[in-house]
Amino acid sequence: MTLKCDVQYGKGDTGFKLTKVGVTGVRKPVLVQRERATPLTGALNCSIDIFVDLPATQKGSHLSRNVEVLKEVAYESISKPVSGLENMASDICKKLLVHHEYAQTADVRIRAEYFRSSKTPFGKNTLESYQLLAGAKVVRGAIVRKTIGVEVIGMTACPCAQQTVKEMLNCSTEYPVISHNQRNVCTLLMTMDDNINLEADDLIDLVQGVFSSPTYELLKRDDEGQVVINAHSNPRFVEDVVRKGLKFIVEKYSNLPDDVEVLVRSESEESIHKHNAFAERTATLGELKGEASE
Amino acid sequence: MTLKCDVQYGKGDTGFKLTKVGVTGVRKPVLVQRERATPLTGALNCSIDIFVDLPATQKGSHLSRNVEVLKEVAYESISKPVSGLENMASDICKKLLVHHEYAQTADVRIRAEYFRSSKTPFGKNTLESYQLLAGAKVVRGAIVRKTIGVEVIGMTACPCAQQTVKEMLNCSTEYPVISHNQRNVCTLLMTMDDNINLEADDLIDLVQGVFSSPTYELLKRDDEGQVVINAHSNPRFVEDVVRKGLKFIVEKYSNLPDDVEVLVRSESEESIHKHNAFAERTATLGELKGEASE
Amino acid sequence: MTLKCDVQYGKGDTGFKLTKVGVTGVRKPVLVQRERATPLTGALNCSIDIFVDLPATQKGSHLSRNVEVLKEVAYESISKPVSGLENMASDICKKLLVHHEYAQTADVRIRAEYFRSSKTPFGKNTLESYQLLAGAKVVRGAIVRKTIGVEVIGMTACPCAQQTVKEMLNCSTEYPVISHNQRNVCTLLMTMDDNINLEADDLIDLVQGVFSSPTYELLKRDDEGQVVINAHSNPRFVEDVVRKGLKFIVEKYSNLPDDVEVLVRSESEESIHKHNAFAERTATLGELKGEASE
Amino acid sequence: MTLKCDVQYGKGDTGFKLTKVGVTGVRKPVLVQRERATPLTGALNCSIDIFVDLPATQKGSHLSRNVEVLKEVAYESISKPVSGLENMASDICKKLLVHHEYAQTADVRIRAEYFRSSKTPFGKNTLESYQLLAGAKVVRGAIVRKTIGVEVIGMTACPCAQQTVKEMLNCSTEYPVISHNQRNVCTLLMTMDDNINLEADDLIDLVQGVFSSPTYELLKRDDEGQVVINAHSNPRFVEDVVRKGLKFIVEKYSNLPDDVEVLVRSESEESIHKHNAFAERTATLGELKGEASE
Repeated sequence: MTLKCDVQYGKGDTGFKLTKVGVTGVRKPVLVQRERATPLTGALNCSIDIFVDLPATQKGSHLSRNVEVLKEVAYESISKPVSGLENMASDICKKLLVHHEYAQTADVRIRAEYFRSSKTPFGKNTLESYQLLAGAKVVRGAIVRKTIGVEVIGMTACPCAQQTVKEMLNCSTEYPVISHNQRNVCTLLMTMDDNINLEADDLIDLVQGVFSSPTYELLKRDDEGQVVINAHSNPRFVEDVVRKGLKFIVEKYSNLPDDVEVLVRSESEESIHKHNAFAERTATLGELKGEASE
Repeated sequence: MTLKCDVQYGKGDTGFKLTKVGVTGVRKPVLVQRERATPLTGALNCSIDIFVDLPATQKGSHLSRNVEVLKEVAYESISKPVSGLENMASDICKKLLVHHEYAQTADVRIRAEYFRSSKTPFGKNTLESYQLLAGAKVVRGAIVRKTIGVEVIGMTACPCAQQTVKEMLNCSTEYPVISHNQRNVCTLLMTMDDNINLEADDLIDLVQGVFSSPTYELLKRDDEGQVVINAHSNPRFVEDVVRKGLKFIVEKYSNLPDDVEVLVRSESEESIHKHNAFAERTATLGELKGEASE
Repeated sequence: MTLKCDVQYGKGDTGFKLTKVGVTGVRKPVLVQRERATPLTGALNCSIDIFVDLPATQKGSHLSRNVEVLKEVAYESISKPVSGLENMASDICKKLLVHHEYAQTADVRIRAEYFRSSKTPFGKNTLESYQLLAGAKVVRGAIVRKTIGVEVIGMTACPCAQQTVKEMLNCSTEYPVISHNQRNVCTLLMTMDDNINLEADDLIDLVQGVFSSPTYELLKRDDEGQVVINAHSNPRFVEDVVRKGLKFIVEKYSNLPDDVEVLVRSESEESIHKHNAFAERTATLGELKGEASE
Repeated sequence: MTLKCDVQYGKGDTGFKLTKVGVTGVRKPVLVQRERATPLTGALNCSIDIFVDLPATQKGSHLSRNVEVLKEVAYESISKPVSGLENMASDICKKLLVHHEYAQTADVRIRAEYFRSSKTPFGKNTLESYQLLAGAKVVRGAIVRKTIGVEVIGMTACPCAQQTVKEMLNCSTEYPVISHNQRNVCTLLMTMDDNINLEADDLIDLVQGVFSSPTYELLKRDDEGQVVINAHSNPRFVEDVVRKGLKFIVEKYSNLPDDVEVLVRSESEESIHKHNAFAERTATLGELKGEASE
């Protein structure tokens, strides 16, 4: 039986084009190549949003084609793991423009949990959870711009409260002074042309260094003490966290083109407030290089 | 005792400026004028994000000033209720540039639950919950751009599944044919110069009309049946929901300037899938007027 | 037109009785008497779950009656504010058994945000956000058991890390030693016969005292320093937080009957880990009195 | 350097015992045996809560031991995949009582996303996402009671609205009549002695049959139509969903002991309301067998 429903091809009665039409929150496991892979870290469980635009002349987008493209890409990853979620996003974008012949743009966003081994200050092995963020956008005929990113949880201790306490207690101690400290979520996103390849592991390594201290799933007593000492020896505002990230990016990626777009964000779940502290910079790598050299 | 901690005024060691520094998730009740206010709908419980930018020459932003400004504005609302959350956001923006003398930009976002009476198809009174969205941004020396918006839950029935079922069952019935239907969240945001005033109630009225049917807290049998009949007599894709919203906006706000920015978004929690369907248009009112007249 | 659909009254084909049938997540503003009320703290925006049981002989529960009862109770609060959310829950329970003539039990749960003024260490006024929890359960013919509760955010500093750091640094300082500190959410629930009346404000006062320090929306420098000093002078595990709460309850409510049920829970968003620390005690007040006197 | 901090071993100053002390939200990948495993479905990413009780005589629980036990069990799963999350929970419980020599009870809860292949009405392969729920509790000296469970998303169409519409339209059609339909989340939990072994896949198969229709990630036109037809040919209240689940359990697990505890829950994200409909039964298998035979 051939169904002839062509409701989607009909002309919408209102005649407006649409910027993004698609599906959100599709769950899909995907096999990804990883240098540090272990049997415990096989497929990544992805949450995926997929959009194309829609011209004024067409009533509906064929949403099932988005899921078909995704299904095909995920299935192919079994025999040939994808080289990175951002490359998978780029691949999906290109296929979307083939399957949606009426679309001029495609836009894909992916989020997945990622486990990676880490080492505590005293060298014990732990396995830490991170979020990988990836995406890609394309305009028909132009080069795909893809985004690679990570979201990392660390710890910040406040430099201002530390200084204030020192004055209030009239401390002349050589020991690190008390302050408030808390969970901090730092996000790093880099957007660039499709032909540039970065490693998510490198971004995680970079972000691990921006906090007052990284955090760990398992800390026996000496490691717990050392994390606290480290954090209070490196007190940082959310502003400092972002700037440290920007500095590291300019240092590590100085060879990348100036048109790479960078976002660094730091959000602290303040222990002394019920609300959060927040800092963010969005800029091109070119702008950041310029500011770094001043 | 005068504390001299001036950590924030110190020069950051990295020298990057920051785009947004502030606080997120501050909870604050605010009294707002409402035409349809009842004793049950007094203050709005707001969740508020407040940001300013930060020059490269300064280490930290004075985050407590953000909360002080907010506290003052909320307190003043007791004697003189604010005329709208978007106007409160605008007011906060202006005050932020006074209190953060180093800042060039300010950015405020507000979300609050809002209850309003509604009527079922057979005229029973109900009280429905909506989300109000508001915001404002300003660059020092320029006019404030403010955003007024609403998020409304309604119901959509799928036109394509309805047509397919009709073919599959070879229906020649005059009655509305079965389809899948589900919760749909429709978001409308309008951004404009500070001196233009819109009513959130008008935006809610407008969005109530974009669904296959509005939804209600309380439906006795006849009303429940009528809602189902209405929804299946007006089957709509997420694309249709957005376009209907755009059409209503062009009709109702044709007298507003072309540079008003419009966002209409529709997200359906598909009953036949575990993921959502999504459509969105972002455009200036000028672009929309142009497309409407084609 | 009289609709005769009596699907709900039909016998379910499977013949099992059901423990709880109802509605969840109903949003409703309710006017509540408050000693410390201000114009900014009018109606409470409640999220409400309402259940009754269902005998094996009946196919469906009449869910719209749950919302009707709720609507009536909320509407009556306009002319006569309810004396507490737990009393409203109890009232709804009693009405449910009238409206669901087939039900033997009723169960109501309510959650609402609540704003209340507080004072920083140096006496500045702030407005803090709390969660009120309330509930009631009844078996037909028996007395209603109602629950009054609060959820409060505070701050804990870890005593163990503090001690460890002291040893690692070989500190002989008189000043409080550094430790990790973080947001802690403390929940207190008390369940009792309908005729006993407690004040949610008293429970909040009690819980404010269990943390290493309360937290505040607005802290200028001296207050921020003092909160940090206070927290590190009162380091507390999640276990200590719960036990402090139990102690306060036994002291304050020694005159209440032994069959009052108590739950105290403390969950810390650990700054040194990506996961939380958790402690909880559930007991009758009689058991707690016994343990306190040992 | 040997740190001698024994803060946890100190006597708490308040002398209350605690019911549950531990960690919540620990993220950990674990390798699990699966009959239908594919390369895309390797390790399960678990969120784990681990608790023991604490006597009045001890100040603190050694929380790091919880994570150590978990780490060991997860690591061992690399060489020998665990036979089920509920068996892993049971194993952790037993180890907890060894490592917390002062504890009398242990309690473990696990949640993980699980992907499994499914087939649409017309036989197309899809991959669907489910939630596995598992747990175990033990009192020192007694047998471990473990819980195996699943959370499945499906679709329900309302029988009452369908009947009402039929009356309102005076339909004499042979075709299925319109109704409201929506996402339904059905949860099934079974708790039993440690030595009984069930398969999570069997529970998923069972729950797939309780809805008006299962749902699928990918539905081309004919399958979409068939799902809609199936759903409206099997209209079900949340009450029906739960009872169907109870019936299937009694049929499939009649050989299990009467003291197996059963929970079946169904929550519908009503398309005609902004709130949910809910039904639940908790009972022993013995009680259910009795009701089924009446």
